[in-house]
Amino acid sequence: MSEREAARAVGGPDAGGTAAADWWATAVSRIEPDVIELRGQPVQDLIGRIGFAEMIWLMLRGERPDPRRAALLEAALVSSVDHGPHAPSIAVARMAATCGVGLNNAVATGVNLLGDVHGGAGEQCVRLLEEVVAGSRGPGGDTGGDPGSGGDAGGDPGDVRTDPVGGDAGSGPSGDAAAVVARWRARDRYLPGFGHRFHSRDPRRDPLLGLVAEAAEDGVVAGAHLRAALEIERLIAPVPMNIDGATAVVYAELGFPAPLARGLFVLSRSVGILAHAWEESGQGRRNKGPIPPSILPTWI
Amino acid sequence: MSEREAARAVGGPDAGGTAAADWWATAVSRIEPDVIELRGQPVQDLIGRIGFAEMIWLMLRGERPDPRRAALLEAALVSSVDHGPHAPSIAVARMAATCGVGLNNAVATGVNLLGDVHGGAGEQCVRLLEEVVAGSRGPGGDTGGDPGSGGDAGGDPGDVRTDPVGGDAGSGPSGDAAAVVARWRARDRYLPGFGHRFHSRDPRRDPLLGLVAEAAEDGVVAGAHLRAALEIERLIAPVPMNIDGATAVVYAELGFPAPLARGLFVLSRSVGILAHAWEESGQGRRNKGPIPPSILPTWI
Amino acid sequence: MSEREAARAVGGPDAGGTAAADWWATAVSRIEPDVIELRGQPVQDLIGRIGFAEMIWLMLRGERPDPRRAALLEAALVSSVDHGPHAPSIAVARMAATCGVGLNNAVATGVNLLGDVHGGAGEQCVRLLEEVVAGSRGPGGDTGGDPGSGGDAGGDPGDVRTDPVGGDAGSGPSGDAAAVVARWRARDRYLPGFGHRFHSRDPRRDPLLGLVAEAAEDGVVAGAHLRAALEIERLIAPVPMNIDGATAVVYAELGFPAPLARGLFVLSRSVGILAHAWEESGQGRRNKGPIPPSILPTWI
Amino acid sequence: MSEREAARAVGGPDAGGTAAADWWATAVSRIEPDVIELRGQPVQDLIGRIGFAEMIWLMLRGERPDPRRAALLEAALVSSVDHGPHAPSIAVARMAATCGVGLNNAVATGVNLLGDVHGGAGEQCVRLLEEVVAGSRGPGGDTGGDPGSGGDAGGDPGDVRTDPVGGDAGSGPSGDAAAVVARWRARDRYLPGFGHRFHSRDPRRDPLLGLVAEAAEDGVVAGAHLRAALEIERLIAPVPMNIDGATAVVYAELGFPAPLARGLFVLSRSVGILAHAWEESGQGRRNKGPIPPSILPTWI
Repeated sequence: MSEREAARAVGGPDAGGTAAADWWATAVSRIEPDVIELRGQPVQDLIGRIGFAEMIWLMLRGERPDPRRAALLEAALVSSVDHGPHAPSIAVARMAATCGVGLNNAVATGVNLLGDVHGGAGEQCVRLLEEVVAGSRGPGGDTGGDPGSGGDAGGDPGDVRTDPVGGDAGSGPSGDAAAVVARWRARDRYLPGFGHRFHSRDPRRDPLLGLVAEAAEDGVVAGAHLRAALEIERLIAPVPMNIDGATAVVYAELGFPAPLARGLFVLSRSVGILAHAWEESGQGRRNKGPIPPSILPTWI
Repeated sequence: MSEREAARAVGGPDAGGTAAADWWATAVSRIEPDVIELRGQPVQDLIGRIGFAEMIWLMLRGERPDPRRAALLEAALVSSVDHGPHAPSIAVARMAATCGVGLNNAVATGVNLLGDVHGGAGEQCVRLLEEVVAGSRGPGGDTGGDPGSGGDAGGDPGDVRTDPVGGDAGSGPSGDAAAVVARWRARDRYLPGFGHRFHSRDPRRDPLLGLVAEAAEDGVVAGAHLRAALEIERLIAPVPMNIDGATAVVYAELGFPAPLARGLFVLSRSVGILAHAWEESGQGRRNKGPIPPSILPTWI
Repeated sequence: MSEREAARAVGGPDAGGTAAADWWATAVSRIEPDVIELRGQPVQDLIGRIGFAEMIWLMLRGERPDPRRAALLEAALVSSVDHGPHAPSIAVARMAATCGVGLNNAVATGVNLLGDVHGGAGEQCVRLLEEVVAGSRGPGGDTGGDPGSGGDAGGDPGDVRTDPVGGDAGSGPSGDAAAVVARWRARDRYLPGFGHRFHSRDPRRDPLLGLVAEAAEDGVVAGAHLRAALEIERLIAPVPMNIDGATAVVYAELGFPAPLARGLFVLSRSVGILAHAWEESGQGRRNKGPIPPSILPTWI
Repeated sequence: MSEREAARAVGGPDAGGTAAADWWATAVSRIEPDVIELRGQPVQDLIGRIGFAEMIWLMLRGERPDPRRAALLEAALVSSVDHGPHAPSIAVARMAATCGVGLNNAVATGVNLLGDVHGGAGEQCVRLLEEVVAGSRGPGGDTGGDPGSGGDAGGDPGDVRTDPVGGDAGSGPSGDAAAVVARWRARDRYLPGFGHRFHSRDPRRDPLLGLVAEAAEDGVVAGAHLRAALEIERLIAPVPMNIDGATAVVYAELGFPAPLARGLFVLSRSVGILAHAWEESGQGRRNKGPIPPSILPTWI
C-alpha cells in the first residue's frame, strides 16, 4: 500500500488533499514532475511515431487503432473541415476575429455553435443507424460485433462495394429500417444525416461510403451500419445521404459512441473555423457585422 | 466580364446582393450547389488521399506540404494534446460537461481559455525566435529563408543533431540573442517557451527538437529558429525549453506566422479537451465544482 | 408604398440588399443614423428615466412594466447573482480570468455553463408550475389569467401570505399537482426547483415567496403559480423550494415564458460571475487550475 | 484560534483540504449550509430591499452606493443595452440561437465578442480620461478625489451643465489634454470613446453627460473626468463623444477601475443580446447564416 493509499484508507493526515485529488481523477493522462503519460503511454514515445488522427483515437478510446481503421477516421476528419461562411460556426468565428479577441476565442465562438441542430446530426444519425442495426439482429442482437471479422451481420458487403453509392443493400433489414425511419419521422421532420438544403448530392458522400465499403469487404469493419444507411437512403429516395450521414457511417462502423460523432465533427470543423478566422484577421475589418454597413436591418 | 462582375460594375439590379456576397468573400472555400472546393481543391479529391495534419496545413496556407514537413507538423500537433486537469482549459471543459450543455459547448469552453497566458506562449516564442534570427542576419536579413535548401543560415545543423537536446549551436547569434533576451526580460519576467513550473525538464522537448534537427540536417527546414532556441537555452541555463518553445521551433521552421502557433495549439489541445470532457460526462456528476462539496472555499 | 417596399415588391434594383436587410429583420431595435429606438422608444427618452430591471423587461417583452411588477423582477434578479466558487459557472470564470483573456471572455465562459443542469432548473420549474396551474383549471383553462385581477384561480392568496413559507394553499389543485409531480418524477429523479444539495432550507426562498404573496394579495399578480409551487412543496415535504423554484414562481407570475427564466438567470448570475472574475484577476495567479499545484489529480 | 486556523497553522489533519479551500478563497461571497452572504450581507436582507444596479455595485465594490450614484450607474447600464444586429455581438447570438444550443450558450457567444475592439473602448477611454485628469493635477495629483465633495478639481461644473453637450470646460487641462491626445493618437488612429462610424451625433451622449453634469453640480461626483472628456471633444472637434466615451465618463466619475468599464458594458449589452437571441429563437430558422441562402459568398 502506497503512502497515498494509506492516507486515503484511514482518512489520514492528507484526507482533504486526497479528496481533492480524487475529485479530479482521470484515466486520460498521468502528469507528474517530468512525467507525461497519455492513456498510459509516455508522450515521448508517441511524438513522431503516431499520426494526429491516431492520437485522437488513442485519447478518446484508450487504445491505438490499426492503420486501416485510422485511415477511415482520418478520411472522415478531412471531409468535414469546412462548408464556407454560410455555416454559422464559420461566420461567427470570422466576426469574432474582428472584435479584438484572441484567435482561440474566435475558434471557441465557432465551436460553441455546433449544437444539436448545427453539429448534432451526425450524433443523431449514429443513433438512427444503431437502431436499424439492432432491429435487424432481432432480440439479443449485438450491434458491436467484431469489427475485424466482417460479414457477420448478415447482408453482403460485396454487393455494397459493387455499387457503394447507389447500391442495393441486398437481403437486409428493410422491414425494420422502414419502421425505424417511420418512428424517427414521426418525432421530427428532419431525418438526421439525409438531405441537404444546398446540395442535391453532397460531393462528400460517395468517397466516404466508398472507403467504408472497401473496408467492409476487407473485413476491416463489419459493414452493418453502412448497409443500414444505404437501406434508409433507398427507403426515402431520392433524398441522398449528406456529410453527417456519411461520417456517421464511418464513426459507427469504427465503434465510436454516438456523442463522439459530434465530438469528432468538432475537431474536424475547428480546422475550417481556424482557417476562416485567420483569413478574416488579415483583412483589417473592425467589428464586422453580418451584412455591409450600407444595408440596414429591416425594422418590423 | 461575367454577369456578376457586370452587375457589380454598374451598381446594377443586384447591387445589394453583390455587396453582401463580397462582404463574405473568401479564398478558403468555394461552396456552390454540388460543389465544395477547399483551397481550390474539390473535396472529393481530398477525402482518403490527404492526412488530417496535411489538411490543416492546406486550409491554413492554401497549399499542400511535402511529406517531411507534414510529419513535423503532425509531431507538434501530437505533442501538446493534453497536460491533465491542472490545466484550466481541461478542467473547465470537464466542469462544463456536467452542466447540461453539449459536448461542443464543453470543448468551446476549454478552448476559450487558451488565451495570451495559457495558450499564447508558443505564439510569443515564435516572435522571440524570429527576432533572434533576424538579428543574426543583420540588416537586410531574411528570416524566411529557403526551407528546402537548409544550412544557409550559418551554423551547422549537424552539430545540433549530434546533440540536439543539450548541444552547442556552434558559432552563432549569441551576441544578438543575448540582447534580444535581455529586451524581452525587461518587458516581462516570463520568457515565453522556456521553463516549466511543473517539469524540471519537459519530456516533450527532446523528441520534438530531435525531429527538427534531423529535418534541418536533411535540408527539409533551414534550422535557423532551432539554433536560435538552443542559443537562448544556453544563455539562460539551466532553464530548459518547454513544450511551447519546442513547438514554436517546429512552427517557425515550417514558416507558420506567429499567431498560427496559437491556432495550431488550439487544434491540438482540443483533442485533450474533448477526451476529458467525454470521460467526465460518463462519470455521472452534476454541476461539478472545482473542489469536493465537503471542502468549503475560505471566506476572506 | 415606400421606395424600399416598392423595390421589394418588384424584385427591383436592390433586391439582394433588401433580402439581406430582411434576413436581419427585428422588432427589438431600430438603428439608423442618429436614431436609436429600443422597442420603439428613443433611447434618449429612456436614459435616466427607466431602471435597469425595467429596461430588461422592456427589451424582452416590448412593453414597460408597472412599478410593482418591476420590483418583483428586480428582487428575483438580485436574489441569484452568486452562489460562490463551488458553482461551476463561477469557478470557470475565475480560472479564465487568469489565462490572459478579456474580462468579457471570462464572463462568457461562466455563462456558457448555465446549461440544462446548471441553469435550466428555473426554466423547467416554470413548465412544471404551468402544468399544475393548467391542470387545476380543467379543460379550456387559461394559465395566463389577468395578472391584475388576482385571486381568480381559486385558493386564497391571503392564506399564503399569512404563512407564505409553510402555508396551506387552501382548497386547491392537490389532485392535479400530485399527478403532475408523479409524471415529472417518473421522467427524472430531480424535480426542478425543489431541494438543494447544500442548504436544508434555501435562505432566498422565504423573502422571494413573501414578496410574491404580498403582490398576489394586492392583485398585482394572480398567485396561481405561487399556489401551485406551495402545493408541490407540501406534497414532497420536507424538501423545500430552492432558488430556482422561488424565482420560477416570480417569473411565471410575471408572465415570462419558461425559456426566459433561464435567460433572466443568465443576466442575474452574470453579476456574480463578473465580480468573481474581477476579484481573481487582482490576485495575480496565472493559469489557475482547479486545485493547488501541490495536489496531483489521482490517476486511475 | 479556530479549529480550521489551527489545522492550517500546523499542517494538521486537513492540510490538503485547507490548501484546496484557500485556493478558492474569496471575499465576494460566503456560502455555508443555510447561509448565503454576499459581500458580507445576508442575501435575505438584500432581496426586495436593493435595486439590481445597486446590487451590481455592491458585488463589484463591496459596498452599497448612495442613491444618486446608483442612479448614474443605472443610467449608464440602460444606455448601452443594444445597438442592433449590425453589432457582431448581437448577430452571433441570434445565429447561435438557431443552432440547437441553450439560450445561455447564445448569450455567452455574444458576450465573448465584446473584446478589445468591440467592447474595450469604454475601458480604454477611462484610462484616457484618467491620464488627462492626472496630468491636470500635476505631480502628486490624485485622480481619485472625493467624489462626494465635488468641484474640487478646478473648472466649473456649472458651465458644463449649462451646456453639457457643447460647453467650454472653462479654464482647464487643455495643454495637458492636448499632449495626452497627441500621445494616444500616435499609438492608434482610433481615439477610444470619440466618433461613431454610424451616427454623426450619438443620441446617447447628451442625456448621459447631462446627468453627470447635474451630479457634479450637486457634488455627487467630482466632475473632473467629465471636464476632461469635454476638453478632448473640443480639441478634436467636430468629432463628438460616443456611447463608450459617455459611459466612460460615468464609470470614471463613479470611481470604477478601467477594466470594469468593460465589465459593466458586458452586463448592459447582455440584455440586448438576450432579447435578440430570444426573438430569433421564435422565428423558426435553423442554422441561420449571415446572409440569405440565395446569396453566395464571393470566391476570391
